[in-house]
Amino acid sequence: MTFREDAQAAVEWAARYLEQVGDYPVLAQVEPGELRAKLPAAPPEEPEPFADVLGDLDELLLPAMTHWQSPRFFAYFANTASEPAILAELLIAATNQNGILWRTSPALTELELHVADWTAQLLGLPSGWHGHIEDSASTSTFAAVIAARQATGGGAVVCSEHAHSSVEKAARMLGLDVRKVPVDREFRLRADALDLADAAVCVATVGTTSTTSVDPVAAIADACREAGVWLHVDAAYAGAAMVCPELRWAFDGVDRADSLVVNPHKWLLTPMDCSLLWTSRPVDFRAAFSLVPEYLRTPDAADSLGDYGPALGRRFRSLKLWTVVRCYGRAGLQRMIREHVRLAELFEAWVRDEPGWELCAPRPFSVVCFRRDGSNEENERLLAAVNATGEIFISHTKLDGRYVLRLAIGNVRTTEDDVRRAWDVLRREAAAL
Amino acid sequence: MTFREDAQAAVEWAARYLEQVGDYPVLAQVEPGELRAKLPAAPPEEPEPFADVLGDLDELLLPAMTHWQSPRFFAYFANTASEPAILAELLIAATNQNGILWRTSPALTELELHVADWTAQLLGLPSGWHGHIEDSASTSTFAAVIAARQATGGGAVVCSEHAHSSVEKAARMLGLDVRKVPVDREFRLRADALDLADAAVCVATVGTTSTTSVDPVAAIADACREAGVWLHVDAAYAGAAMVCPELRWAFDGVDRADSLVVNPHKWLLTPMDCSLLWTSRPVDFRAAFSLVPEYLRTPDAADSLGDYGPALGRRFRSLKLWTVVRCYGRAGLQRMIREHVRLAELFEAWVRDEPGWELCAPRPFSVVCFRRDGSNEENERLLAAVNATGEIFISHTKLDGRYVLRLAIGNVRTTEDDVRRAWDVLRREAAAL
Repeated sequence: MTFREDAQAAVEWAARYLEQVGDYPVLAQVEPGELRAKLPAAPPEEPEPFADVLGDLDELLLPAMTHWQSPRFFAYFANTASEPAILAELLIAATNQNGILWRTSPALTELELHVADWTAQLLGLPSGWHGHIEDSASTSTFAAVIAARQATGGGAVVCSEHAHSSVEKAARMLGLDVRKVPVDREFRLRADALDLADAAVCVATVGTTSTTSVDPVAAIADACREAGVWLHVDAAYAGAAMVCPELRWAFDGVDRADSLVVNPHKWLLTPMDCSLLWTSRPVDFRAAFSLVPEYLRTPDAADSLGDYGPALGRRFRSLKLWTVVRCYGRAGLQRMIREHVRLAELFEAWVRDEPGWELCAPRPFSVVCFRRDGSNEENERLLAAVNATGEIFISHTKLDGRYVLRLAIGNVRTTEDDVRRAWDVLRREAAAL
Repeated sequence: MTFREDAQAAVEWAARYLEQVGDYPVLAQVEPGELRAKLPAAPPEEPEPFADVLGDLDELLLPAMTHWQSPRFFAYFANTASEPAILAELLIAATNQNGILWRTSPALTELELHVADWTAQLLGLPSGWHGHIEDSASTSTFAAVIAARQATGGGAVVCSEHAHSSVEKAARMLGLDVRKVPVDREFRLRADALDLADAAVCVATVGTTSTTSVDPVAAIADACREAGVWLHVDAAYAGAAMVCPELRWAFDGVDRADSLVVNPHKWLLTPMDCSLLWTSRPVDFRAAFSLVPEYLRTPDAADSLGDYGPALGRRFRSLKLWTVVRCYGRAGLQRMIREHVRLAELFEAWVRDEPGWELCAPRPFSVVCFRRDGSNEENERLLAAVNATGEIFISHTKLDGRYVLRLAIGNVRTTEDDVRRAWDVLRREAAAL
C-alpha cells in the first residue's frame, strides 16, 4: 500500500505551497485556453503514479491558479483555508461520510447541528435556531426563498439594488419577480422605499458585496412582520464579525430574521465550501424540502438534514468547521477579525490622506472602496495594471456610475507589510499611467 | 509552524482508518442524540491543539459513523473514496481555489471542462457536449429541470414511478407539476404510457434507485423529440458502467439526451461530492443561469462555470476526478466495474439457488434485489437484525407492495469473501428469527 508514501508527498506539496504562496503572482498570468492546450486530449488507458499528478500540479496547474491563499489576495472577499481545516478535509475525504439520513452518518448529522449551535453562540444569535450547512450562500439564499414562498404564498422577492446577484438568480430560477429597492447615499436599502405587496421574502444584507454596506435590518424586520413577509438576512461575508461584540451594532435586528446565511468559508478560516444557514422556522423548511421515498424510510426517531435544503446527500463539512472552532477558539477568531479590521482602517486612512485619491463608501468591516481621481477608464486601466504586476490582486465595482476599486482584507496571512505593499503598488502604477 | 507535524498525525489517522475500517460495525450502533450529549454544549474560548480534535474523532465521532468505506457497506449505492482522490482533497483544500469566474481560477475552470471531456470519452458519450461538476445529482437534475423549463416553456416534469425522489423534489421546489408514468414488470418506464402534453422535461433513468432498472431511453427520446420536450437522463449510479463496452447496451439512446447526470462519487472512486452534468444544449443552460453583476465583470474572453448552474462559487472538485482518472486509467476503472458486476452476479446466483429466498428484480449492474419468503414484517425484521450485527449494512425498498432487501456492491475493497459473509449473515439471521 502506497498511501502513506503518497500522502507524505501530498503533505509536503501542501506545506511548501503554503510557505511559498506569497511568492507567486496572485492573479494567474495566463490566457484563456492556455492550460487546456497543455493537457492531453485523451484520458490515460493505464494507471499512472500519484507522483505524476503532483508533478503536473506543479508544472501545469500552478501557473494557472489565482492564489486565494496569498497574503496579497485583496479581491472580492478575501478568505483563508486554515491549516487545521485543510487537514480536516483530508479526514472528511478519508471517512467519506454521506449524510443522506441520520443513520447513514449519525456523526455527520449531529455534529452539523452541534457546530451550527456553537457558531450561533459565538455570533450571539438567539438560542433555539435550527442551523445546517449548505455549499454556498447562493444555495442558502435559494433555499430560504423556496421555504419563504411556500410559507407565505407570496410571489415576489424584494431586496436592495446592492443585494448579491444570487438573490436575483434565485428568483429567476424559481420564476419569481424580483423587486429592487433603492439605496441611500451610503448604499443601504431605503426602508422608506420598501414595497412588500405580494412579496414572499425580503432579503436584507449586512455587508453587501460592493461596499459591505449594512441594510437597516431592524426597520426591515418591522415592515416584514407587518406585511407577513419572510425576512432573510444575507451576512455571508460580514456575519463572522459578530464574533466581536464591538461590531455587533451592524447586526441590530438580525435576531428577528426568519433565516440567516453566514459563510465560514469567507471570513471564518474554513476551506471552500461551507455556508451556514440558520432559521427560526425549521417547520417551514421541512415543509418545503422533506420528501422521504420508501427506499429512504427508517425507523430512526431523528431528523435528516436533507429535509432542510435542496440536496439529499451531503459531505462531512461540519468536521472542518468544528476543527476551526476548536483550533482557534473564540479568542483566536476575534483576534483575526480585529486585525483585519485594523488593517482596513489603516489602508482607509492612507487613501484619505493622499491627494489625488478618494474614499467612495463607508468602511464598516475590512473592505475599502476607493478610486484615483480621474475617469472610469483611467481607474479601469489602473486596476488592470495593478493586477498584471502579480504583486497584488484587487477587484472593482461601480457606484453611482463611477468605477471604484475595492481592497478586501480577509486572509489570515496578510500583514501590515502586505497592505502597505498594496498601497505602494497602487500609487506606483497610478503614477506610471 | 506545526502544519507538517499535525499533517503527519492526520495522515496516520487516515491510513489506519482505511486499514481498519473493515473491523468496525458498518452501521453506527448508536441512538439518536447520543453523540450530541457527549459534546461540550459551548464552543471553546481559547485555541486547542489539533491533536485534541484527532483524539475526539477517535473517541466520540468514530462510534457514531456509519462506515461507507467498509468493504461490507452494501446499502443504497455503495461507493469508494479512493486513496489518490483522498489526497487530492487535501490539495484542493490547501490551494482553496474558488471558481467564481475564469480569472479567479483558470486552473479550476479549465480542468473542470477538460476532465468532463475526458470522462465523456471514457463513457463513450458524443463529442462536443458541455460538461461541468455539481455537488450532487439532486442539484444536477434540478439544474437540468430549470434549463428545460426555460428552454421549452413547458410546465410539468414527467418521470417514471421509480425515478429518484430528487426529480419530484426539483419539481416541488420550482412549483411545477410532476407526472409519474407507470412501469412495466421489470420496473422500466412504460413508453406506451408516456404523456408529454405540457411537459417541460422528461427524466429517464438508467439504473433506478430501487432496482437499477433501465428505462427505454431510445423510445423516450423519440417521444421527447416529437413533443419538443427536454430529455434529461439520470444515470447517477449506473453511468459509470459505460466505461465497459459490454455494458453499454443499457445506455442505448443516451446520446440523444439534452442533459445527463453521472456521479463519480458513486461508482467512480471519487469522494463526496462530485456530480457530472453534461448537456448538448449549453446555450440553454447559459440562458437559464448566467447573470453577471458589475463586481464580477472582467475583460476575459472565457466562460465562467457559474453560468451553467445554480451556484456562483465552486471548489476545485475537478482535481480529485482528474486524479482518479490518472491513477486508475480506463483499464483500472473497467477492472473495478467488472469485478463489482461479477460479485453481484455471484450473490444473485446464491439467492436463486437457495430454497426459501427469491430474487425480486433483474440485475443489470451491481445491485441485487431479493427477499426471504414470508411477510413484509418478517423481511423488515430480518433487515433490522442483519444491520444490528454490524457485520454488514444493507437497505431495502418496496416493489409492488412487497418489502424487498437490496445488496449494493460498489466499494473497491469489497472481495468475494465479503459478499459471501453477507450471504452467511443473512441466512444465519433469517434462521434465528
